[in-house]
Amino acid sequence: MLKIIKIGGGIIDNEIELEQFLKTFSTIEGPKILIHGGGKGASKLLNQLGIEPKMVDGRRITDKPTLDVVTGLYAGNINKLIVSKLQQFGCNALGLSGADGNAIKGKKRPVKSIDYGFVGDLDNESVNKDLFQLLIDNNITPIVCAITHDGNGQLFNTNADTIASTIAVAMSKQNDVELNFVFDKIGVLRDVNNDETLIPEINETLYLQLKEEGVIFEGMIPKLDNSFNVINAGVKNVCLVHARNINSDIKTILC
Amino acid sequence: MLKIIKIGGGIIDNEIELEQFLKTFSTIEGPKILIHGGGKGASKLLNQLGIEPKMVDGRRITDKPTLDVVTGLYAGNINKLIVSKLQQFGCNALGLSGADGNAIKGKKRPVKSIDYGFVGDLDNESVNKDLFQLLIDNNITPIVCAITHDGNGQLFNTNADTIASTIAVAMSKQNDVELNFVFDKIGVLRDVNNDETLIPEINETLYLQLKEEGVIFEGMIPKLDNSFNVINAGVKNVCLVHARNINSDIKTILC
Repeated sequence: MLKIIKIGGGIIDNEIELEQFLKTFSTIEGPKILIHGGGKGASKLLNQLGIEPKMVDGRRITDKPTLDVVTGLYAGNINKLIVSKLQQFGCNALGLSGADGNAIKGKKRPVKSIDYGFVGDLDNESVNKDLFQLLIDNNITPIVCAITHDGNGQLFNTNADTIASTIAVAMSKQNDVELNFVFDKIGVLRDVNNDETLIPEINETLYLQLKEEGVIFEGMIPKLDNSFNVINAGVKNVCLVHARNINSDIKTILC
Repeated sequence: MLKIIKIGGGIIDNEIELEQFLKTFSTIEGPKILIHGGGKGASKLLNQLGIEPKMVDGRRITDKPTLDVVTGLYAGNINKLIVSKLQQFGCNALGLSGADGNAIKGKKRPVKSIDYGFVGDLDNESVNKDLFQLLIDNNITPIVCAITHDGNGQLFNTNADTIASTIAVAMSKQNDVELNFVFDKIGVLRDVNNDETLIPEINETLYLQLKEEGVIFEGMIPKLDNSFNVINAGVKNVCLVHARNINSDIKTILC
């Protein structure tokens, strides 16, 4: 089973949690791929450099100065921090942006009401499966940051959840794939304040029921909708899991 | 023949020259590896962030804030700029720091009169030959920035000429290797102001003679001493070449 794991800002911004997560990640046997988002460092660095965040209708726009900052931070600082720590823990990690080996090709998000700037969207041709297969077949663990390219020399800021989902679907053509979204809870809980109410497994029927009951609501709905799309496209399981449980059974498995 | 090419700040800092160089580089057939230095961007960014360059006895010290800036800039911005441009020009480039796939392991420079901070020195065990061989055997062109790691989670700033030489020697165990240092002149000139005085080939005997004559002097001496060490360690040729001539015969070949 190829395990694909996505971590977000919550872990990246917490040095101790990140270190603990990477230790656990390195104990996962078999082929694996890590996708990481960016965390709050970008806003901080933009602020230090006196670059005003460009917002349109409450949405952050990736203009050229912002793209430069996130490229340095995501593909440079955060990616190399993760890679060097994993090497320390005995995991043969290798960092990738989407440009490296043409790993992930994006297309500039079309301008409708908003021009998001240098933001790349992905489709089912985006992932260079051969590159990922070559690396994992040689016991190399790809560590993917949220930067893609268009093949014409343009880099893009790209949503890390989307990258993880797109890689998972692409790799599922030739591997059994489990996609894990690292989450601030231990999984989907009937009562968000009580870990003992973890729902270990959710299929589409139960999902509809949980939505009706209001157990799953707001931001969780697009997350789970996306997860079931990924499953319907060929990924075996999608898991919502806490960082500390990444190599255990305490999680919600969508199937 | 595996061609290993090192470019420095002069090209990196000049957008037009860099683009032209990368176009020419992408036309080189056969396996190749590019090593790049950093250019003046680091000083500029440190300055923008209000970080005072730390100097001891006129030497730049890589303290933690400086290491963070150069890691973002070299492994992030510059490396991904080069990789995305090469992808545009049809070269399947893949960026590496020394941490990626454990490509290049350094050791912290020993503290004698000066503590250089997070600066890594290399030895003849530093290079992960298997990784480079895997990539070039799969038509992937490694693009190596001047950041290494110690295998214990510490990144280092490392001299790009040293990285290029060390990779060249390591890869010469299993490949015919030509190492090219991109240079501001078209090669070694008898008269620095006259390109028609190019010396096309220099062996060690001629080198000694040119030193005695004062044709080769100052900063060129350590450069050529290092080049002959590299040749004596197994590299076929070391070339001094202008960026525009990287895929031509106009160069000085040391042999």
